[in-house]
Amino acid sequence: MPAGEFELIERYFTRRGAHREDVLAGVGDDAALVAAPAHATLVLASDTIVEGGHFPAGFDARFVGHRALAVNLSDLAAMGAEPAWALLAITLPAPDEHWLSGFAAGLDALARRHGVALVGGDTTRGPLTVTMTAAGTVPPGGALMREGARPGDDVWVSGTPGDAAAGLAILQGRLPAQGRARDALLARFQLPQPRVALGLALRGIATACIDISDGLAGDLGKLCAASGVGADVESRELPLSAGLCSVAAPGARVGYALAGGDDYELLFSAGPGERARISALDAGVVLRRIGTIAEVLGVRIDGEPPGRDAGHGFDHFGGTAPVRR
Amino acid sequence: MPAGEFELIERYFTRRGAHREDVLAGVGDDAALVAAPAHATLVLASDTIVEGGHFPAGFDARFVGHRALAVNLSDLAAMGAEPAWALLAITLPAPDEHWLSGFAAGLDALARRHGVALVGGDTTRGPLTVTMTAAGTVPPGGALMREGARPGDDVWVSGTPGDAAAGLAILQGRLPAQGRARDALLARFQLPQPRVALGLALRGIATACIDISDGLAGDLGKLCAASGVGADVESRELPLSAGLCSVAAPGARVGYALAGGDDYELLFSAGPGERARISALDAGVVLRRIGTIAEVLGVRIDGEPPGRDAGHGFDHFGGTAPVRR
Repeated sequence: MPAGEFELIERYFTRRGAHREDVLAGVGDDAALVAAPAHATLVLASDTIVEGGHFPAGFDARFVGHRALAVNLSDLAAMGAEPAWALLAITLPAPDEHWLSGFAAGLDALARRHGVALVGGDTTRGPLTVTMTAAGTVPPGGALMREGARPGDDVWVSGTPGDAAAGLAILQGRLPAQGRARDALLARFQLPQPRVALGLALRGIATACIDISDGLAGDLGKLCAASGVGADVESRELPLSAGLCSVAAPGARVGYALAGGDDYELLFSAGPGERARISALDAGVVLRRIGTIAEVLGVRIDGEPPGRDAGHGFDHFGGTAPVRR
Repeated sequence: MPAGEFELIERYFTRRGAHREDVLAGVGDDAALVAAPAHATLVLASDTIVEGGHFPAGFDARFVGHRALAVNLSDLAAMGAEPAWALLAITLPAPDEHWLSGFAAGLDALARRHGVALVGGDTTRGPLTVTMTAAGTVPPGGALMREGARPGDDVWVSGTPGDAAAGLAILQGRLPAQGRARDALLARFQLPQPRVALGLALRGIATACIDISDGLAGDLGKLCAASGVGADVESRELPLSAGLCSVAAPGARVGYALAGGDDYELLFSAGPGERARISALDAGVVLRRIGTIAEVLGVRIDGEPPGRDAGHGFDHFGGTAPVRR
């Protein structure tokens, strides 16, 4: 889109997000210039969301703009990073001003909330696809990695996993729901909140950390694989929301929580000696201890491998969620 | 693609590109960790290429991998930056090992040539779209900007613009060509070479700089607009390649050179006092002085606004190139 591209970018994506003194040149040159703090480690994440894959066709443009940045800020949060700058590469079937305006508003609101400046990117024509790159910083040696979990560590999770997947199921008419529960679960899918403050607070406390984008059990498996350990989770300790409990049967609730994905909560390990400090953290989200890191490899839910225990509704749900991949 | 994604990324995109001591954590965690040099300014660019938009359907996967990185390294070159790290966000219709292997090889070769480490990214399913983000550094105050051109400055261009557009026309059967000219022009479209060494050499010399991705005349217009100046270009000074001259009539040659796009050469301004230094630069590409920066706004080719002078073939070509946007 040669003629319109420049004007579109100028109008919708210039000076979006927070104002930051360290942005030396934002949108408008061949590349962005930013001043990194001395001696900091840079943290870089790039995530793509595709219409029909990561959000349903016809999803409100504000939610798409929010999600595009949220998934990247969640990656930075999982590293304990302080987000600073973002670049937007958006592919659109056609320049639609109404849609762009909503998208920019959703992106802008989340960026400002987290002090992130939109410094550059690209606009191209094609099937709706949004790739954002987020950059932030951590002090040297301060990043939270997936490796580092040790046998005997507690396993913790933030928030109420499963809500986002239930919200998507409601949106797609696969799960009946009404009233406040419906609204609450829909909002959890539409406006996932990256746990940036929690990631910062967990520096020096968590031994390993990952964000739950693909489902709690699967992401715990990745954390364990990176750390060379296993984990035992007690399903009765899973922090299920009142909304989820009101719309899903007991087995299905646990299935949503373990396999639903899209939660963008943080899953982390920490030594038992940190329980008091963790419980006292004020990071804007509830934290729950759901299990223990073990020497024996693999993830076990109530002693059983996940996905083998149909009683949890795990297989069923994992096989029927049409929007995720 | 939950099951295959991780393995695909592991196999094809782990430890790609150059080995760099400053990469603290590459592909495999929630985000990448890199150590930025103290007191450097970071340079960040994100560019997307879409099948059918920026390259033809069925384009060799090696060329797609090369191009995805080349267009971003070209943005960094235009800022005078030294490239360091890259992230790859690739959306694929289906995991195709043969295609991925070719793509990774093309990307890897270019990354190694320029000392760039691939440190992260994302793999998603959907219509073929590739977004890369490249990050590099410049000394504080050392970046080449689009603004800064002053009336009386010379206008310079690297290489032989127009070749890439002619190569694309040959590839699409719109321009008959044979033998060495055909091979040379095709290669210029298939494997554009980002002018990284030239960008570094121009620090402290060029007053303004931009890469030619959308066509020489249009990109010169952007440089002039950013600088608040105009420019006069002499079409007889355009450095046309022997290949281009052998396949295109005189008017069409100039049209390719001015409006073709995809050249990824550098266009820059510099004071007349710098002519000897510029001519003596050894940056692996020929440099040609093609015009002068003027106070009067706008770009003029032989005194006429581009696009109004059909004798250059400008309008015709601009209106019929089906792959660019």
